[in-house]
Amino acid sequence: MSKQTAQSHMTQQNDLPMVAAVDLGGTQIRTAVLRGDRLLSRVGLLTGDDPLPKRILPRIFAAIDQALDEAGVRLDQIAGIGVGAPGPLNSRTGVVYAPPNLAGWHNVPLRDLLEQQFHLPTFIENDANAAALGEYMFGAGRGCTDIVYLTISTGIGGGVILGGKLLQGISGTAAELGHMSIDWQGERCNCGNIGCLEQIASGVAIARRARAAIAAGKGNELRAFALSHSALERSNYDESEPDPSTYVSARIVALAAKAGVPLAEEIVRTTAEAIGVGLVNIIHIFNPEMIILGGGVTQIGAMLLEPMQRVMRERAMQVPYEAVKIVLAQLGSNVGLVGAGALIYYNR
Amino acid sequence: MSKQTAQSHMTQQNDLPMVAAVDLGGTQIRTAVLRGDRLLSRVGLLTGDDPLPKRILPRIFAAIDQALDEAGVRLDQIAGIGVGAPGPLNSRTGVVYAPPNLAGWHNVPLRDLLEQQFHLPTFIENDANAAALGEYMFGAGRGCTDIVYLTISTGIGGGVILGGKLLQGISGTAAELGHMSIDWQGERCNCGNIGCLEQIASGVAIARRARAAIAAGKGNELRAFALSHSALERSNYDESEPDPSTYVSARIVALAAKAGVPLAEEIVRTTAEAIGVGLVNIIHIFNPEMIILGGGVTQIGAMLLEPMQRVMRERAMQVPYEAVKIVLAQLGSNVGLVGAGALIYYNR
Repeated sequence: MSKQTAQSHMTQQNDLPMVAAVDLGGTQIRTAVLRGDRLLSRVGLLTGDDPLPKRILPRIFAAIDQALDEAGVRLDQIAGIGVGAPGPLNSRTGVVYAPPNLAGWHNVPLRDLLEQQFHLPTFIENDANAAALGEYMFGAGRGCTDIVYLTISTGIGGGVILGGKLLQGISGTAAELGHMSIDWQGERCNCGNIGCLEQIASGVAIARRARAAIAAGKGNELRAFALSHSALERSNYDESEPDPSTYVSARIVALAAKAGVPLAEEIVRTTAEAIGVGLVNIIHIFNPEMIILGGGVTQIGAMLLEPMQRVMRERAMQVPYEAVKIVLAQLGSNVGLVGAGALIYYNR
Repeated sequence: MSKQTAQSHMTQQNDLPMVAAVDLGGTQIRTAVLRGDRLLSRVGLLTGDDPLPKRILPRIFAAIDQALDEAGVRLDQIAGIGVGAPGPLNSRTGVVYAPPNLAGWHNVPLRDLLEQQFHLPTFIENDANAAALGEYMFGAGRGCTDIVYLTISTGIGGGVILGGKLLQGISGTAAELGHMSIDWQGERCNCGNIGCLEQIASGVAIARRARAAIAAGKGNELRAFALSHSALERSNYDESEPDPSTYVSARIVALAAKAGVPLAEEIVRTTAEAIGVGLVNIIHIFNPEMIILGGGVTQIGAMLLEPMQRVMRERAMQVPYEAVKIVLAQLGSNVGLVGAGALIYYNR
């Protein structure tokens, strides 16, 4: 019951104890000391090309110490350490299985290693679940009890809160909403499944589709746009055929779509429709009060949101469709740290 | 908390109070008096072609009275009335919205009408949710806390129990697992969505696919098999081209597949693979302890279950796949009544 009513206690930020947070990503590792969603310090480091646990763990420990120093806080003033990490991981045992973007990680007992180092209560969650909790306690989901958080960036992740409780599943791997197939006879996803939402509508998928069209000679206008907007333009200008992978990204495709490049518009529209289909599935499966959309791809704005909403309007069952509010995430780039810290408030 | 521990109290059947149950279907309406999963009486009636509430409700009331009579039980010996009804409905308000197979039903306050008639606590649920609860308390799911029930018959329905609690959603319409799209650019489902699991893998879909192949002249062997196994064979024998809809059913396709008719084998295999894809999505979304498969289509047996399991093995993420048990439902044709009665034990 303490979990279910945790949210109501969150309104008074100053009543909250301070916590340490770790946002462990494939590119960056960030640590912070927070009180609620207020950052008292923040320390970032690059994950690097060689993130073997034995190399990276001492650096995480040092970054936590540094965040404490910068906040002017002693270890015994901290209620616990919350960690958001790439899945798959088991939040119950605290073991990180083998995230595709953390090379060399295999069944790492990250929670226990942190507890041995700092002697503080430590909780670890899939990064999307942690972000969902952050938005639920401190962001767009405040005041709700049943929310689904969907983050659409490089990949697509999900976090689900039902009756105020995080949906974790029997092995702590639930809510892998990006690995729901919406195209069962389609193309294979990195995860091994076929036609996953992530395989169709992630940032990586947007860039992949653009590059394939350019490589097939169908994207001259997009290619020209991308080259003119790319930092590589000057250095590559006189090469006959630069590799599209060096200058075409999801961000460039979004800019091209806004500038009216037809191929880019079509890619954004297809992406938006696929996300809409995923949201219809989420509405039919969870009948949630609110769906919170986060991640860089949602920053495309109306060009993405309008076709997405059209698909939902056309396809979803009326009763759950009329019940759900679709909103954008509010915590921005700190969602990983705020969510990781929220794990302490949630689990106390 | 009483809900979460309800299951543990269920083991001693004789300790349970008696309840009345109504299983309201598009074809049949059944009422019963039960103690746990033990039927003390059962009364069935046909829904008929004209199931307007004002006509059918007095008949339901009479059938409940008759079930009480036959069990030799007075109304004041009954703890409550549980109702399983076709969705969409709102289990919180007790209102049945507009089920496709109950013509003339529109926002019927069925729970209140029953309470006014019998002055007993009355609970109503989507039929698949009620069945899930029945299997959880008295069938294959005993001892589990996180189960997903999927019933594959005329349509495909779902019920989800998480931490011992039924997933109901904010409007009481959650767990519409049959209306999860797995083919987002596919064909339109009756529900308005596109490429729903139900549209691809239900009993109706099996028969539809067979009839389409026969109508296109590609199913001569299946047509001959169906005619020879159909009760209509004799009466239609000398007509030149009987309508396949009069002699091809999902059951006939299953028999033909077992007899080695290639088209029927292919239809069963495609159905099985689509169900497997749906189960992979369920595994990724819920990471459940157990998935319970019910409904007539599952009675096809190994020809269905083996391709389904192959797809799961090939496509699902390893950790949640290894954690889940896939089992067949145990309550058989009484699942609707047992599940409806279980609503009383669950909600007390």
